[in-house]
Amino acid sequence: MTRRAFSILAAAALASPLFSQDAPNLAGQYRDTANKLIDAALIDHDGLDKLSYLCDRIGNRLSGSPSLETAIAWAAAQMKADGLVNVVTPPVKVPHWVRGSESAMLLEPVAKPLTMLGLGGSVATPTKGITAEVVPVSNFDELEKKGREGVQGKIVLFNVPYEGYGRTVAYRASGPSRAARLGAVAVLVRSVTPVSLQSPHTGALEYNPAAPKIPAAAVTIEDATLMQRLADAGNTIKVHLEMEAHMLPDADSANVIGEIPGSEKPEEIVVMGGHIDSWDVGAGAQDDGSGIITTLEAAHLIVKLGLHPRRTLRVVFWTNEENGGAGGLAYREWVGDQILNHVAAIEMDGGAEKPSGFGITGRGDAQTILGKVRDIGKLLERIDAGSIQSGGGGADIAPLMKDGVPGLAVRTVGTHYFDWHHSQADTADKVKPEDLRANIAAMAVMAFILADMPDTLRTPPAATK
Amino acid sequence: MTRRAFSILAAAALASPLFSQDAPNLAGQYRDTANKLIDAALIDHDGLDKLSYLCDRIGNRLSGSPSLETAIAWAAAQMKADGLVNVVTPPVKVPHWVRGSESAMLLEPVAKPLTMLGLGGSVATPTKGITAEVVPVSNFDELEKKGREGVQGKIVLFNVPYEGYGRTVAYRASGPSRAARLGAVAVLVRSVTPVSLQSPHTGALEYNPAAPKIPAAAVTIEDATLMQRLADAGNTIKVHLEMEAHMLPDADSANVIGEIPGSEKPEEIVVMGGHIDSWDVGAGAQDDGSGIITTLEAAHLIVKLGLHPRRTLRVVFWTNEENGGAGGLAYREWVGDQILNHVAAIEMDGGAEKPSGFGITGRGDAQTILGKVRDIGKLLERIDAGSIQSGGGGADIAPLMKDGVPGLAVRTVGTHYFDWHHSQADTADKVKPEDLRANIAAMAVMAFILADMPDTLRTPPAATK
Repeated sequence: MTRRAFSILAAAALASPLFSQDAPNLAGQYRDTANKLIDAALIDHDGLDKLSYLCDRIGNRLSGSPSLETAIAWAAAQMKADGLVNVVTPPVKVPHWVRGSESAMLLEPVAKPLTMLGLGGSVATPTKGITAEVVPVSNFDELEKKGREGVQGKIVLFNVPYEGYGRTVAYRASGPSRAARLGAVAVLVRSVTPVSLQSPHTGALEYNPAAPKIPAAAVTIEDATLMQRLADAGNTIKVHLEMEAHMLPDADSANVIGEIPGSEKPEEIVVMGGHIDSWDVGAGAQDDGSGIITTLEAAHLIVKLGLHPRRTLRVVFWTNEENGGAGGLAYREWVGDQILNHVAAIEMDGGAEKPSGFGITGRGDAQTILGKVRDIGKLLERIDAGSIQSGGGGADIAPLMKDGVPGLAVRTVGTHYFDWHHSQADTADKVKPEDLRANIAAMAVMAFILADMPDTLRTPPAATK
Repeated sequence: MTRRAFSILAAAALASPLFSQDAPNLAGQYRDTANKLIDAALIDHDGLDKLSYLCDRIGNRLSGSPSLETAIAWAAAQMKADGLVNVVTPPVKVPHWVRGSESAMLLEPVAKPLTMLGLGGSVATPTKGITAEVVPVSNFDELEKKGREGVQGKIVLFNVPYEGYGRTVAYRASGPSRAARLGAVAVLVRSVTPVSLQSPHTGALEYNPAAPKIPAAAVTIEDATLMQRLADAGNTIKVHLEMEAHMLPDADSANVIGEIPGSEKPEEIVVMGGHIDSWDVGAGAQDDGSGIITTLEAAHLIVKLGLHPRRTLRVVFWTNEENGGAGGLAYREWVGDQILNHVAAIEMDGGAEKPSGFGITGRGDAQTILGKVRDIGKLLERIDAGSIQSGGGGADIAPLMKDGVPGLAVRTVGTHYFDWHHSQADTADKVKPEDLRANIAAMAVMAFILADMPDTLRTPPAATK
């Protein structure tokens, strides 16, 4: 999940709470079907096997990497094997950032290697690295107070305690340019995570075109607080930073798309998916292997049970969510006027911890929309995943939502997601089999009913209706 | 904390619960003094400053390392600065194990570096490393079932889920020799920890003299379960392991000893301390920087408040607890017949999380002993640290307890200790200031009263009484 994706969700969640109108009768109509899907999901093994293959055999998959293209080819083959049709991989040009070799060393007042990960998109240091004094700050105000005279020629350390991802990630995103404008030569950012076992977390930075581009890396909570303590004790902190990070020309990648064609209104489309790319650490298991495998396995179960939704149910694995969003934009472009036939889009990009329900953002009569989704949510109460809240979407479906498509997001308990996110710890063991199965169940029920129900969430209705 | 230390505590805790007799009147007698000590401890800064210096400036301190000797010299100077007298550093010869360069690489079915830490005491691989098939087992029964034909020439992976430190650490300790006896060429052990963010944990192995010595390393939960999943999916797992680990001739080290001399019975001694050595990763902050700093700062506060216990209160920082126990044995030898005058020994080697109380093991009338300590415990109820349980001791004071000295151990909530223990994550940030202060308070009260109270815990009484 990118910072942008998080902002979308967070902003949506801040919208006024909405109340269900008199419920339509979706729950009654679909109870048997929902129970069949849930029963099948709760004993499913294929989803886990696929996630293990993706994580363990293919591994992480940064835009531009051979492993992403291996994953894309595997995913297309897997969609076909799972009974999806019209499987295509429309090409997408993606940014190609390469980490290269990197290291950071505390030189003064003691010599000690620092545990770090360069931030995605960072430029390199000069070949011989940068050696400079470190100035720790706890927030942007402190940075501004230090000003150019306090920062010029130095490495700024943003030692910002975690106060939720949304608040804290600002320092990773805009910290480098904020420091650069005051003359800093590099930036270290305390990893954006609630807990650490010497765990650096990467993620994208956002250079401001008006500022010089300076190299930036995440350090661990342990090393950030070490430098803070040393500075507080009156020491001058000196660090040597070496990074080879650089951008190559845009690389060839692709979205992966497969369908269960609609039985009555094949031209109307419900999209569900996640992003197939990941950062270049860990295995992209929760972020977002779990999202794409959940949607694929949900579709697979619908096929296996011989269910035929009235509308087309389309599974999309978007590429390049983490450092560019090219996949989401390319999909929007690819569908062209068909956008008018997209009746709903579901994105799953918050990990597969125990699901609690869905968030929904749609245009028009918000109460009616929420009421319909809440009615579907009733069918998920048996797995405690029936909580439907106002506020849904995701980075990849944002271009669709901008053009009027109602957007949904899976919600989970979210207990540990940010402990693992963008780090070496985002590996397949973090996805509990029972939680993955519950997510598959919730996704299958929600997607099938959205694609089959008499009405849609879209107002005005889809063009061809 | 070593495996041995843990076993001592665990065995003691299994002893029958004991019930307090009619309480003596220690609580009434010492309430004012205890409150003064607690008040002072709860606003103490010196303890934190010392812990930060030890962890941040000196760092980890394995037996035989220059940093251990730096720490010993610093500790002796610090004891003097804190008003202790008779400060001495009697020499101790310690084992000198050196990790050297080390790495492990998964070769098949996919190539991937493994995150590892060689086990303390391990021998090296041949210079070019060992490349062999990996056989995962979940317990010793599975190992024995595989037998020589299943294990010969292979690397055994003990992928044992954590079921408490005491149960699981057996695989780290005796797993290497158990596998070697069946012809294994190396051992990988899933790190002994409840949680992991790609976190390897080292610790001592115990070679059985009857088995060939084979190299052994800890891998992370992530990598152990990865190999297990790959094996379960029918793949042959191949790993390349390179370790330079080796023993050098025994090195010179020392215990660090300082005293608050007794005002009436200076020949009678209450010992309190922890171990000054650590593993060669992290900073040895919880294990056991927190223990030694707690005892030193407790003594410092007693001095600062001008309190003069009737008996001598002796602070001891034992060396080489982690991989040999030479410091504890040397101290026992150093005190000679003075052992008869040791009326109590308190070891703190379980970290400085929020303290809950003390455990006590003594000879003779266990109920009377427990009753006395529980009476002291009442004075710690205001900081929720008054729970006194049967079962105390520690690796360093075990030689004293063997000769009749009542042994106490600090008890804490123990929520995260084994998440950090023996890993790169055992750093100063893990010690919460308020928890360190509460430990200092508890230690100061317990140690002062044991050294000052009319009676002692020892039966028969100390020789000179």
